[in-house]
Amino acid sequence: MSHPEILARYRRACDYLALAMIYLRDDVLVRRPLRTADLKPRVLGHWGTCPGLNLIHTGLNDVVGRTGRRTLLVTGPGHGAPAIHANLWLEGSHADRDPALARTGDGLAELVRRFSWPGGFPSHLSPEVPGVIHEGGELGYALATAAGAAMDRPDLLVACVVGDGEAETGPTAGSWQTSAFLDPDTDGAVLPILHLNGAKISSPSVYASMSDDELRAYFTGCGWEPVVVDVTGYDDPHDPRADRAMADALEGAYRDTGQRRRGDRLPMIVLRSPKGMGAPDRDAAGAPLAGTFRSHQVPLEAAEPDSMMLLERWLRAYRPEELFDADGNPEPDLLGVPPTGELRLGSVPESVGGALRRPLPLPDLEPYAVDVPAPAAVTASPTGTASRLLAEVMRRTEDRRDFRVVCPDELDSNRLGAVLEATGRAFARDPGVYSEHLTPGGRVVEVLSEHLCQGWLQGYLLTGRHGVFPCYEAFASIVDSMTNQYAKFLTMSRSVPWREPVSSMVYLLTSDGWRQEHNGYSHQGAGFLSNLLTKRPEVTAVHLPADANCMLVVTGDVLAATDTVELVVTGKQDTPVWLSLDEARAHCRAGAGVWEWAGTGTGDPDVVLACAGTTPTIETVAAAGLLRERAPELVVRVGNVLTLRAISDPATAAAGIGAAEFEHCFGAAPTPVVFAFHGYPSAVHELLHGRPDPNRFHVHGYLEEGTTTTPYALLADNRMTRHDLAADALRRVRGPDDPGAAELERERDRLVEHAVREGQDAPEATTVPHLARGAA
Amino acid sequence: MSHPEILARYRRACDYLALAMIYLRDDVLVRRPLRTADLKPRVLGHWGTCPGLNLIHTGLNDVVGRTGRRTLLVTGPGHGAPAIHANLWLEGSHADRDPALARTGDGLAELVRRFSWPGGFPSHLSPEVPGVIHEGGELGYALATAAGAAMDRPDLLVACVVGDGEAETGPTAGSWQTSAFLDPDTDGAVLPILHLNGAKISSPSVYASMSDDELRAYFTGCGWEPVVVDVTGYDDPHDPRADRAMADALEGAYRDTGQRRRGDRLPMIVLRSPKGMGAPDRDAAGAPLAGTFRSHQVPLEAAEPDSMMLLERWLRAYRPEELFDADGNPEPDLLGVPPTGELRLGSVPESVGGALRRPLPLPDLEPYAVDVPAPAAVTASPTGTASRLLAEVMRRTEDRRDFRVVCPDELDSNRLGAVLEATGRAFARDPGVYSEHLTPGGRVVEVLSEHLCQGWLQGYLLTGRHGVFPCYEAFASIVDSMTNQYAKFLTMSRSVPWREPVSSMVYLLTSDGWRQEHNGYSHQGAGFLSNLLTKRPEVTAVHLPADANCMLVVTGDVLAATDTVELVVTGKQDTPVWLSLDEARAHCRAGAGVWEWAGTGTGDPDVVLACAGTTPTIETVAAAGLLRERAPELVVRVGNVLTLRAISDPATAAAGIGAAEFEHCFGAAPTPVVFAFHGYPSAVHELLHGRPDPNRFHVHGYLEEGTTTTPYALLADNRMTRHDLAADALRRVRGPDDPGAAELERERDRLVEHAVREGQDAPEATTVPHLARGAA
Repeated sequence: MSHPEILARYRRACDYLALAMIYLRDDVLVRRPLRTADLKPRVLGHWGTCPGLNLIHTGLNDVVGRTGRRTLLVTGPGHGAPAIHANLWLEGSHADRDPALARTGDGLAELVRRFSWPGGFPSHLSPEVPGVIHEGGELGYALATAAGAAMDRPDLLVACVVGDGEAETGPTAGSWQTSAFLDPDTDGAVLPILHLNGAKISSPSVYASMSDDELRAYFTGCGWEPVVVDVTGYDDPHDPRADRAMADALEGAYRDTGQRRRGDRLPMIVLRSPKGMGAPDRDAAGAPLAGTFRSHQVPLEAAEPDSMMLLERWLRAYRPEELFDADGNPEPDLLGVPPTGELRLGSVPESVGGALRRPLPLPDLEPYAVDVPAPAAVTASPTGTASRLLAEVMRRTEDRRDFRVVCPDELDSNRLGAVLEATGRAFARDPGVYSEHLTPGGRVVEVLSEHLCQGWLQGYLLTGRHGVFPCYEAFASIVDSMTNQYAKFLTMSRSVPWREPVSSMVYLLTSDGWRQEHNGYSHQGAGFLSNLLTKRPEVTAVHLPADANCMLVVTGDVLAATDTVELVVTGKQDTPVWLSLDEARAHCRAGAGVWEWAGTGTGDPDVVLACAGTTPTIETVAAAGLLRERAPELVVRVGNVLTLRAISDPATAAAGIGAAEFEHCFGAAPTPVVFAFHGYPSAVHELLHGRPDPNRFHVHGYLEEGTTTTPYALLADNRMTRHDLAADALRRVRGPDDPGAAELERERDRLVEHAVREGQDAPEATTVPHLARGAA
Repeated sequence: MSHPEILARYRRACDYLALAMIYLRDDVLVRRPLRTADLKPRVLGHWGTCPGLNLIHTGLNDVVGRTGRRTLLVTGPGHGAPAIHANLWLEGSHADRDPALARTGDGLAELVRRFSWPGGFPSHLSPEVPGVIHEGGELGYALATAAGAAMDRPDLLVACVVGDGEAETGPTAGSWQTSAFLDPDTDGAVLPILHLNGAKISSPSVYASMSDDELRAYFTGCGWEPVVVDVTGYDDPHDPRADRAMADALEGAYRDTGQRRRGDRLPMIVLRSPKGMGAPDRDAAGAPLAGTFRSHQVPLEAAEPDSMMLLERWLRAYRPEELFDADGNPEPDLLGVPPTGELRLGSVPESVGGALRRPLPLPDLEPYAVDVPAPAAVTASPTGTASRLLAEVMRRTEDRRDFRVVCPDELDSNRLGAVLEATGRAFARDPGVYSEHLTPGGRVVEVLSEHLCQGWLQGYLLTGRHGVFPCYEAFASIVDSMTNQYAKFLTMSRSVPWREPVSSMVYLLTSDGWRQEHNGYSHQGAGFLSNLLTKRPEVTAVHLPADANCMLVVTGDVLAATDTVELVVTGKQDTPVWLSLDEARAHCRAGAGVWEWAGTGTGDPDVVLACAGTTPTIETVAAAGLLRERAPELVVRVGNVLTLRAISDPATAAAGIGAAEFEHCFGAAPTPVVFAFHGYPSAVHELLHGRPDPNRFHVHGYLEEGTTTTPYALLADNRMTRHDLAADALRRVRGPDDPGAAELERERDRLVEHAVREGQDAPEATTVPHLARGAA
């Protein structure tokens, strides 16, 4: 056979296997007439995209074998999992991970049975599947993930399939601009393969409705050089001319990616193929199938006899008896098609990033710490302090090139600019305007797309590297859904024995809501934090360092963490430093603790002032100061929460502190606790469930009140000023009619009036009153 | 003066006003030497985009005046608010809404002072600003919003400015494909104006780095016909040649939009202008300003004398004395530039959609209701039932054309296909493949982009129409952030006296997580619900109708609601109908209630089984059946929650039921409550805060456990089967060692083993056991 004919035959085997996986549980090579008992009782899977994926995968096998170029495959249409499984089995990547999936008749039967079966392989690609760094269940992120995987891997080629549906998503549409950020000298190549089969679940697809000229124009405009491979004209789904066309396109693309220079357009392929290619033309009721949206998922409901006959004919059309021997072993010629060893798409080392990951060379924290003679004696910027540590990590990884900062153009405005002294911004084009810190090979990537930042970092981390994602707090919610999916990926990865831990996804949320009084209401909100709490506690952590030293310790911790999503929310302004480095270390270890120097009196407290977050901590310490002046007889305890799940019942979250520590920090029930919280009060309410008498906690937080105003007035709108906290404390102890509380609220109102009149806060609205016990 | 000169002069006035708004609080026409006391103490605002916005706005004034074509302006760079305010003031739209902003010296002083001042105008566009239907704080949604505003308004032209930064966002990149959905016969025109000024906050912009040819190719490819207007070559920021070029481009675009035919490319404009055009070349320290990223926000920190001198020179460069008379009134020639009445961009009727809104012609529910001889005697699909109602609403609005369904290609798969019998899918191109239900003028819009769906619907609702957004539950989180911003917009709108209520944003989340056992883990999650709970209770509502009749009533209610975000989560499968239509009506009114027929015994309950959501309700009724068999002596009460905030403390949410109703529904403390909840247990935990003894509630829900499996096995993974609920109830009453509970769990494990062995659930795992009291 000629070469394309061999590829077509291989592809036929893959198509057959994919179809068998969707339908069959027994007699997987249809040696006997099809019976109901041979069918899976619940038929799940997506056929529509599988034949096209097999054409691509087979073509990649061929070009990788011929060029020896290590290639990672990111499959956007992860619901085409049967196609990928077929290839992984034939190339032996499955067998390497699990001997039960050997390339034998038994292995074949196990593969087919295990797909979409309870306890077996999920219907979508997932971390259980070799070679996979992207699930493709929620569409939109394949291309960004592929680009992240390619960064700082100049030898790697990352092929990325984008389907009709995914192409329509905003994140994918934005990801095409990744071409502006990939440096030909320091980064690998991304080879997008836009797979158009004309239809989605039940509607035509937008990109497929574009003419070839329109597609060429669109992609040329954003930095790609598309080659259109159109296989819609062949009657035979395994016409070798299709393989020839794909081979030619891939060969050209591999050649061009190898020779690319700065400013060149990057190769890409547009594949037009009939949806569900190879399916019967019509179903038993006469509705059209092949080439239409009706072949998207399971084209034939095989339950009734007419459909079963069609299905049997369809299965036999692949002539499995020519592809597998009497024992079910694949014919030897098939085994010669895929590359071998680490060149197999399912066995590329980069797809198991944890095995390649080297811990970051973190410096000692001491040189970066703020010297604190007494609590609040000095001020410092939490992010500014952390940025010097990040800059040093950037320097120490200059040769390794395995640490990046991705950011939606907010590095400078978040006081993280020190990082730009250690590296530059990546930009692979002539910007055409005055710019600063643009450096070829720079490892800061700034694009005004949170989706792109997130996708890049996912790809980068999952291939064994490290990174940080600084972001405005309110706008992190843009990637709520991506974070959800990534947390799911990590959750599943943890139970896959051959997946080793990857570096944690680290978000640094600064420009937090309380200091977005200038940008206004749209910039205020802590919903990202709340969303993260819905994830499993072992996979996510929320840190709210209240000062520069705590931030430093937290930053060191999260850079060393693995297999989690770590959220750090802190301020960028110069704010009081409460703890020395050693105190900060102890505080971070505990997760929450009492700040005795901020309280008043000893023994059982009359009231506890608790706080979490930079601004709430300032207000709380100030509120404690007000209480000391106005109600010196009260025993007031001040507790600070650094890692949010410390307040959880330890029965539900390992980070929850023990009952004794909890009582030490927050007093014994029914001591009232006035809790100043950085985000929505509901986050604290939910975490307290299960702790004794949770209703004694009176949580102040962001109540979705805000506009462009002064910092104090924004706090007042949300009843979170020092005066509100102190007033609440007085009322909880002395009763609702306490005149001291009313006086504090009048003071608050006067300070708000001052802000409205003068356009700025009065000094007493923002300074921290003197601390107790001779500090500061 | 020639016409362009008049426009340039007008624009100079707008630029001056914008600059004054950013810096000045007094002597707003710099009649005397600039003093610190004349400056705002906190200088807030974004200069960078203002001069370009003024060029566009002035040009639009001109073309609207000449053509008489009603034009709505959507400003993506909402942080360019000073430019828009300047225009609104000069055209008198501000004065019409607020006499204090009259076109006089006093009005001018008030305008300038009020911008970015506590209690004044926010620094970004917001609902307080006339003509605004989009805030532009979080970037990405302007173009989709503009397209939604244009739908079904064939006479309207919606101009939409997209800035450098916004262009990089995924949602915007995806929104360019809106060209495929706008029908020239039934929809208005969208005129995008891509405003490239080269830089973002501190990085160069990707789109500005594209050549004119690349930009033309890119936009031509996706259905637009771009005209590039380049004003970067003029020394004078008010060179009339810039106005001439803009006028020519706009004239052509207005002409072409008026003549467009199906399949034509749509006009758009690309404006290249220097960032911060008109700013000083360098700041006092010598850093470059005009034309660079350094003029993005406030280019000069005016605090020190050298900067103040530069600022004064800059202000005077606009020669305000030529533009405003001695009393501060604008010179009469300026007043002649904008159009008048409803043609003014700030006074277009469509920008106050509430005033145009007509309530939907909702039919009586009776013909659509399911007849229920006894609870669970029949089954029906909740979404299928609602879809017939939606279809009728679609029919009744055929002439009015003010109701749409937007959906990410999931209408059919969510059993809402009946709607397609009443209207078709919009698609303005030849799809090139076999398709069904594509109809010119169809009012179903399906695109695989939740962002685009959401943006379209926002624009549609805010201009006075109605719509519904059905979506897979897990993927609704893709628009978490858009929903946050939209809820903020609604929250602010409510306090603006001239904004009348608009129709509520209605989400129908189907294919809910519990029935995504086939699509697997990535498709499972109820985070959208949890995120919505962080919003203010008067602006958001969450409904969990547990059967078809409840769904019908809820659907009618949410279609009539205004100024809120209404979330409806329900199932699509045929499931038991528990309530008659009348019972469903009463249940919806109450928000939560006892289902006596599902419980056992009378009097004070030993345990309460509570539930919310389609699947949890089935499991709960089944658990009550198990308890009736296994522990007939127990008094078991069953309560169902339909509107989630019914369980909230009424002190925090108006929807919270009173203490007596709460006790009726859930028993008196400390009666244990086993609560089967549709989403994350944390959502119930947070809402219960403030209710007596919240720890007596033991909430079962989605614990982020899942894969491709059977429905029962998915429930078992999350401890939410009927057996888990009944076992928990037994333990709460009888203690942790109750043998009956252990037996129930063994039954659960046997049923899971059955699922793994057989590939499907045993009948007893999914059927509802007989009900008490002779029902069904």
